[in-house]
Amino acid sequence: MNLKYILNLRHIPRTGWVLRGVPPAVAESVADHIFLTTLIAMDIAERLGSMGVRIDKARVLAMSIIHDIPEAVTGDVVRQVKHGVEEYFSMVESKAIEELGLQGYSELYDELSKAGSLEALVVKAADDIATILEGSRLVDTGYRQVEEIVVNVRDHLYRLINEKANGDLKGILHQVVSEYMGST
Amino acid sequence: MNLKYILNLRHIPRTGWVLRGVPPAVAESVADHIFLTTLIAMDIAERLGSMGVRIDKARVLAMSIIHDIPEAVTGDVVRQVKHGVEEYFSMVESKAIEELGLQGYSELYDELSKAGSLEALVVKAADDIATILEGSRLVDTGYRQVEEIVVNVRDHLYRLINEKANGDLKGILHQVVSEYMGST
Amino acid sequence: MNLKYILNLRHIPRTGWVLRGVPPAVAESVADHIFLTTLIAMDIAERLGSMGVRIDKARVLAMSIIHDIPEAVTGDVVRQVKHGVEEYFSMVESKAIEELGLQGYSELYDELSKAGSLEALVVKAADDIATILEGSRLVDTGYRQVEEIVVNVRDHLYRLINEKANGDLKGILHQVVSEYMGST
Amino acid sequence: MNLKYILNLRHIPRTGWVLRGVPPAVAESVADHIFLTTLIAMDIAERLGSMGVRIDKARVLAMSIIHDIPEAVTGDVVRQVKHGVEEYFSMVESKAIEELGLQGYSELYDELSKAGSLEALVVKAADDIATILEGSRLVDTGYRQVEEIVVNVRDHLYRLINEKANGDLKGILHQVVSEYMGST
Amino acid sequence: MNLKYILNLRHIPRTGWVLRGVPPAVAESVADHIFLTTLIAMDIAERLGSMGVRIDKARVLAMSIIHDIPEAVTGDVVRQVKHGVEEYFSMVESKAIEELGLQGYSELYDELSKAGSLEALVVKAADDIATILEGSRLVDTGYRQVEEIVVNVRDHLYRLINEKANGDLKGILHQVVSEYMGST
Amino acid sequence: MNLKYILNLRHIPRTGWVLRGVPPAVAESVADHIFLTTLIAMDIAERLGSMGVRIDKARVLAMSIIHDIPEAVTGDVVRQVKHGVEEYFSMVESKAIEELGLQGYSELYDELSKAGSLEALVVKAADDIATILEGSRLVDTGYRQVEEIVVNVRDHLYRLINEKANGDLKGILHQVVSEYMGST
Repeated sequence: MNLKYILNLRHIPRTGWVLRGVPPAVAESVADHIFLTTLIAMDIAERLGSMGVRIDKARVLAMSIIHDIPEAVTGDVVRQVKHGVEEYFSMVESKAIEELGLQGYSELYDELSKAGSLEALVVKAADDIATILEGSRLVDTGYRQVEEIVVNVRDHLYRLINEKANGDLKGILHQVVSEYMGST
Repeated sequence: MNLKYILNLRHIPRTGWVLRGVPPAVAESVADHIFLTTLIAMDIAERLGSMGVRIDKARVLAMSIIHDIPEAVTGDVVRQVKHGVEEYFSMVESKAIEELGLQGYSELYDELSKAGSLEALVVKAADDIATILEGSRLVDTGYRQVEEIVVNVRDHLYRLINEKANGDLKGILHQVVSEYMGST
Repeated sequence: MNLKYILNLRHIPRTGWVLRGVPPAVAESVADHIFLTTLIAMDIAERLGSMGVRIDKARVLAMSIIHDIPEAVTGDVVRQVKHGVEEYFSMVESKAIEELGLQGYSELYDELSKAGSLEALVVKAADDIATILEGSRLVDTGYRQVEEIVVNVRDHLYRLINEKANGDLKGILHQVVSEYMGST
Repeated sequence: MNLKYILNLRHIPRTGWVLRGVPPAVAESVADHIFLTTLIAMDIAERLGSMGVRIDKARVLAMSIIHDIPEAVTGDVVRQVKHGVEEYFSMVESKAIEELGLQGYSELYDELSKAGSLEALVVKAADDIATILEGSRLVDTGYRQVEEIVVNVRDHLYRLINEKANGDLKGILHQVVSEYMGST
Repeated sequence: MNLKYILNLRHIPRTGWVLRGVPPAVAESVADHIFLTTLIAMDIAERLGSMGVRIDKARVLAMSIIHDIPEAVTGDVVRQVKHGVEEYFSMVESKAIEELGLQGYSELYDELSKAGSLEALVVKAADDIATILEGSRLVDTGYRQVEEIVVNVRDHLYRLINEKANGDLKGILHQVVSEYMGST
Repeated sequence: MNLKYILNLRHIPRTGWVLRGVPPAVAESVADHIFLTTLIAMDIAERLGSMGVRIDKARVLAMSIIHDIPEAVTGDVVRQVKHGVEEYFSMVESKAIEELGLQGYSELYDELSKAGSLEALVVKAADDIATILEGSRLVDTGYRQVEEIVVNVRDHLYRLINEKANGDLKGILHQVVSEYMGST
């Protein structure tokens, strides 16, 4: 594992925030975001598990941890730029995974990208929730341009839940989202 | 889970660094450190697993994620202050775990504190390695007072490895440490 | 005087603020807070003096300057963590005073801790006023979680004034507080 | 001109630096870089002019000013990611120019991208020089991973000079580079 | 050109903002401000040109770039301090221009100071507009003391437009100002 | 006392540092510097007192606290700019003292400016020592341009000691300086 570069994720502010006027000193780093996503994913997986849903927690956590790790090589490129060339970026990110000495996680990363499994779905939802939470807080602090991202990601999350989640997951995600929203 | 406070871990610089002259804008946050610890613990667990050692990866990851989470309530209190009253702080941290709505993880947190299981040991080692890596980098950037922490934590790590790790874990930890040291 | 460590107070953000979501780049440092406390204490002492109250201004100023200086060793530990083990922390702080080569001020520090003298009372009040002022400003800038501290410290201040201050001091403190509140 | 977004260039740290361990608080912003590039381009154009070379200074300055302006929409994407899909990014940047209400400068931006004219060449060289200067300073301050960029951009600059510059420009660029290098 | 010092403009926060409570990490740098001023001046010059007004664009851009460059030597001294001793500061700034190796621009700098030409007027207006835009944004983010500057600079700008601008320039400036104000 | 503005001293980085390449996030604030100066002055006064020298400690401390307070109005203007017009700046600072509601300290501020008394001399020396200490540390961290200030202020300090200090003060200052230098 090439920690020399991975370490730098702690100094990369998330591009979405800084493109909307949040100074890097106020914005979260990519590493900060990974931490929050992992925590939320862990919480969702735990709840699903306690309801009897079979879910591989280790997979959920590992996926969360690596979900933005290619950014140690590529930087944080916004969705708008990737739009239409998702496959190219998918390839760039796979290559980054290898450059970072994380080839052992390539398969997991692919699974996440495809959002096919229950585990991947949980991580995708956690990623959105983490973004919405931080975004809402930035809006509250006076960074109003950020509202645009919060709205978009919320739409993305609801679409994700409605299209891909079913049964218990659907219910839990809706509950988690509403709980978390109330907590900020 | 009381994310309202947990979110703030992203703005808490690690006290050890700032007490040695590193400005918060240069130091890592507690959330940054948790991310790095988790990543390293995941790597160690993976290697152990691939060598046939039985290890509960989900437990390793969950423990890593929560290992400094009480600091969202307590702040980052340095070892020197806790010295001699470890039990009191253990209690304060347990209470913080509950205040943060993470009572479901109380048992896991206790296991980690006691460093009894293989999983706990891996996380403890990862915690030290993450600290040594960041510390070394700060020293390289000119913050020389940090050297003191690097030396102490390295001692702590070697003692931990020698006293508690055996068999494959001992070998792997020594290998991981030397690899990572070379990588910065 | 071990300035090597005392210098670092300028890079330690106050924990109360960062635990409530204020990024260190926006929060004040411990040294900043000491400066503000000293200035306010000087103002109060001056007013008392001009009203004929006997007060040792040099003591007031020296006490203000050293009131948070142990944090160069201990970091800024929040009241909540000290609650119930105040004596232990009192001892830790005394030791820190010595480590910093300030043993000449140990007696003064004790006097302040006990809040027994008029001078100590003035510094305690100034400490609270400085915290309320900065907190109010952070709330105004959008960091709403900080409100909690402002309310608590205001309560603490009023209790302090009502229980310990009498005569001219009581009047002056009430006047200073209301003047300062209006000025932000 | 959509200043609402362009304003944010002042809060976007250059990705190359943060990917190599420079905290955003130490790194320059994209706006900072544009300023420096423009200043250097102005200096080169001035020298060329005073030697009798015909050069359109207004064009040089306008090109410098807009050379990284699309990053207000796209963020600062590193060369490595653009490698192989330069045309796609060229299109994305053109679209960004329009979104920013700068369609009046589309032609100028294209001219710069193609590096065909003398003016474009001067701006390209100034862009590299600005990067080398800042990079060298970061290396001096202890951010050693940055060396990699300095070396690459220096190579790029020499190739640019040798392949595209001729006559007076070649001489001046070599002179400016050596003068500026000496000045840091 | 003495880039060694000019480079530092990127780390000098504008004094007006920090004197009104904006932390440097949130405030713009002098270089940031120069960039924004230049961009706005370029836009105004372009519009004037397209309406048939004769204007030397290269002069406008060069003036914008150098308009605050003496601050690399003097720091950013606020108007209030210069008030009444404008000539002294004019001399100090001229000397700074030379120290920075920019004597070739002394004449241009004088022209700007006197605000005699159309080009100088455009830059003066752009300088004010850039300040108003950033100030408005800071006010929106919760830094209310900044309002005072916004009001003053707006008055200054209107006086400037009414007294010195005539014909097309007057109309364009009013239009640009109202457009930009709407855009934040 | 107009705390509304005085509070802002905590966000004003010292101009000398930022003019030499130190980012504001790494540089100390004016309030930080006042704190350090006061602490050093207190130490010197204490030592003088314990050697039997008559010194008014309250005056020393009050003078230290207010020594840079006018900068809440004027910003931190460097010596180079004040050179030759010291009287003008003296007047500006006196006016600032009044604007800040500190007219009660005008006399004290004048005494300090004239450096006539023993107390004023101690504060002047402490001011220089505080600057040298911080400067040395910045140089160590890689900000080499700062060396220039350290050298100048050291010269200034030695001249001050040799010209104005006599007897015990001379000895103590030399001793304090050498002790403190060794401590960084």
